[in-house]
Amino acid sequence: MARKAAIIGGGVIGGGWAARFLLNGWDVAVFDPDPQAERKIAEVLANARAALPALSDLPMPAEGRLSFAKTIAQAVDGADYIQESVSERLDLKHRVFAEVQQASHGVPIGSSTSGFKPSELQQGAANPATIFVAHPFNPVYLLPLAEVVPSPKSDPQIIETAKEILREIGMFPLHVRKEIDAHIADRFLEAVWREALWLVKDGIATTEEIDEAIRMGFGLRWGQMGLFETYRVAGGEAGMKHFMAQFGPCLQWPWTKLTDVPEFTDDLVDLIAGQSDAQSGHHSIRELERIRDGNLVGFLRVLKERDWGAGRVLLDHDRRRREAFHEAPASGAPLKLAEMQVLPGWIDYNGHMTENRYLFAASETSDAFLRLIGAGMDYVAGGHSYYSAETHILHLGEARLGDRLTGTLQVLHADDKRAHVFIRILRGDEVVATVEQMQLHVDMGAGRTCPAAPAVLARLGPIAEAHKALPRPDSAGRFVGQRKG
Amino acid sequence: MARKAAIIGGGVIGGGWAARFLLNGWDVAVFDPDPQAERKIAEVLANARAALPALSDLPMPAEGRLSFAKTIAQAVDGADYIQESVSERLDLKHRVFAEVQQASHGVPIGSSTSGFKPSELQQGAANPATIFVAHPFNPVYLLPLAEVVPSPKSDPQIIETAKEILREIGMFPLHVRKEIDAHIADRFLEAVWREALWLVKDGIATTEEIDEAIRMGFGLRWGQMGLFETYRVAGGEAGMKHFMAQFGPCLQWPWTKLTDVPEFTDDLVDLIAGQSDAQSGHHSIRELERIRDGNLVGFLRVLKERDWGAGRVLLDHDRRRREAFHEAPASGAPLKLAEMQVLPGWIDYNGHMTENRYLFAASETSDAFLRLIGAGMDYVAGGHSYYSAETHILHLGEARLGDRLTGTLQVLHADDKRAHVFIRILRGDEVVATVEQMQLHVDMGAGRTCPAAPAVLARLGPIAEAHKALPRPDSAGRFVGQRKG
Repeated sequence: MARKAAIIGGGVIGGGWAARFLLNGWDVAVFDPDPQAERKIAEVLANARAALPALSDLPMPAEGRLSFAKTIAQAVDGADYIQESVSERLDLKHRVFAEVQQASHGVPIGSSTSGFKPSELQQGAANPATIFVAHPFNPVYLLPLAEVVPSPKSDPQIIETAKEILREIGMFPLHVRKEIDAHIADRFLEAVWREALWLVKDGIATTEEIDEAIRMGFGLRWGQMGLFETYRVAGGEAGMKHFMAQFGPCLQWPWTKLTDVPEFTDDLVDLIAGQSDAQSGHHSIRELERIRDGNLVGFLRVLKERDWGAGRVLLDHDRRRREAFHEAPASGAPLKLAEMQVLPGWIDYNGHMTENRYLFAASETSDAFLRLIGAGMDYVAGGHSYYSAETHILHLGEARLGDRLTGTLQVLHADDKRAHVFIRILRGDEVVATVEQMQLHVDMGAGRTCPAAPAVLARLGPIAEAHKALPRPDSAGRFVGQRKG
Repeated sequence: MARKAAIIGGGVIGGGWAARFLLNGWDVAVFDPDPQAERKIAEVLANARAALPALSDLPMPAEGRLSFAKTIAQAVDGADYIQESVSERLDLKHRVFAEVQQASHGVPIGSSTSGFKPSELQQGAANPATIFVAHPFNPVYLLPLAEVVPSPKSDPQIIETAKEILREIGMFPLHVRKEIDAHIADRFLEAVWREALWLVKDGIATTEEIDEAIRMGFGLRWGQMGLFETYRVAGGEAGMKHFMAQFGPCLQWPWTKLTDVPEFTDDLVDLIAGQSDAQSGHHSIRELERIRDGNLVGFLRVLKERDWGAGRVLLDHDRRRREAFHEAPASGAPLKLAEMQVLPGWIDYNGHMTENRYLFAASETSDAFLRLIGAGMDYVAGGHSYYSAETHILHLGEARLGDRLTGTLQVLHADDKRAHVFIRILRGDEVVATVEQMQLHVDMGAGRTCPAAPAVLARLGPIAEAHKALPRPDSAGRFVGQRKG
């Protein structure tokens, strides 16, 4: 039987918790007196359903059952875990815990509070030992961090149970050993927020300029290494101590409006350098550099594919450098349609270009061909498209990292519904693969083949006619296992 | 002819500038009296060569020529752009600018300074108008941000020329309109650094815990949206004003040791809400949520593929959920070897699974088969592997977002060097594609086929024998364009 989570407070954060539990197969009961709660939860859940499964390489478990409780007692009845996400008012949280503990006993009760210490949450509770901070980050269904903060009164067994449950729903419970206002992460957020308010107020920068200053630079670093490991790498071979010696003096400089600084003693340097060794010392600086660069390339490629943030800079850079590449249709040769470079992500464990990337290279070539004959994205938007019905790939060579590849296309035969094409993927003059394809013209709405638009046929026809003069490729019409000859 | 950049100071930052210019086709002359400078630059350049080309979808231009100058005069001779990256000492920088301006006239001179204002850099210069801040972020060859900060004495034409050059080498010049100590980004870095030093000093958290608190949560947000846009989305439908009303009071709370805060007036709220509207108002909150989630999924997938940071949490989560999936070899049916879900990144502009992902699904299936017969990664590490020599794909249906697919494999024929296999990609009982492949066993070092190891053949043989009893698939042996029958 599915386990049950009770979610008290159904805003953006409570909704995120509900979605994470549901999509991981838990039943969820939500209590929130807001008449809009059902709609709000449904919206968060729709977002989560569109995103969270994409992180998994296994099919998701069957989604749990979502219910809306009329009372806190009803919500927590039979629950294995309870999460409180009501407004940031201590008196309100105290009232919620009192009601929860009248109806539920011995079950972990996490609070999403951004700022209150667990000992504050526990004040006046019937059973302080089961109440702790489990502070998540929006969107809760995607970001793994949950700061788990106990007080001295917390039951260690409850904390371990809670951490295990958080891991089960895909989270990273960070056990904060000493309670402190705003835990750890929100202290940084608050420091940056205060500095940012100064910059806007003083007219130094707008909100947009501040966001660009973050997401075009250090934000990308922090998403994969955080603060200290990034600086360890920046220190180069000399490491963390060198970095601190270099930047220690800045603590005395007016580099922020926030000027209450700890004394920069040798003891503090040794403490940090020692912790950094324990954290990252199993990697050399060179290794960390390569890891960092690989992560950054990955992030930047993601943003480029999504035309967003720093990725937009990369797209603009390509655009600047791109020269109109495809040649005018010529009668004497296959069309040269695409040029590519073998990227690190295209390499398999053999060290060669991974097999499906040959087909990707062919698709780049045939997509360029479809654009050339006027059957590109705009045409697809009108409800028609060419679909690949059948493909034959012959592997003749091995492409490796950094190789520059060209894709050429020869039309073997075309009629109003079909284009039978032969694509060569070349490195220089060497053919590394051939891809023979039957492309069928389809009415996407009706889901069946139909004649292409006259304008498309008017472009396809002359190319097919010109290509009749080309020699038929030896491997055209091959089947798998046929003898070479 | 290639243009020339002069790089004064060849540490991690100067080396990063040199690499970015070189890989974008510029000639580069480096001046650095450090006898280790050549080695250090070579190491940065090696990192850059391994990473930067992966951001481009076009072949990179021919790399520029790298030279090491004996004097500043020699380095800047004929240069179109000059970048200073010496140590953070104002007197040293002044001496460098004096030497530069004796040998070069009217060329932009950017400084990599983290903290000095341009008016400070310009003090005593022969021509203050050409000196400005161009502050990059490590690794300079990957991160696009360069804060470009002029003073009132700067020549606006020089600034525009510099920004255009920075764009040409793929950077994002952020024009900082008012000079201020540490510009914009480093003020945030410094604020977080100060708070982090407190947390370590007070024993609240270790460097590792602090890094996890950043990279498992808000670091991922900041890499794609920054601070204000993230909070705009968090405010939900009510937007930025709502967010500020909710978190305004926290400014008075002890959420950081850094407590010098601006007065939280209606004017400040209006200023920020207005700027945020100008920045992000063309997207609804719902759109921004979907954009954010897509970016985060992309980042998390990158980290998962790289087994790093938050991605490691996802891998652990999959591992917990994975049950031993492949069945024991059975004689009566094709082997059920892989199970997948169609992810958002697998979808093409038709809304269907993109063509090369069918081959990807087949590779997942054949990889599982190779593991099953003892020819997995360990075997490859020993220098032997099965390579796909020839492939035939028949498209029979369309997979869509979220579909759960199964891959089965039938051995049509096998001998000591070959495995002729037939893979079905199914959605439930429906075959959406068949993939027929000839796998050849190769000696990777010699680059030619050879018999597989006896242990592999001992597993492959009985499966092939059992599969002889299975009906031969209708489409086995098909060629592209063959009539259905």
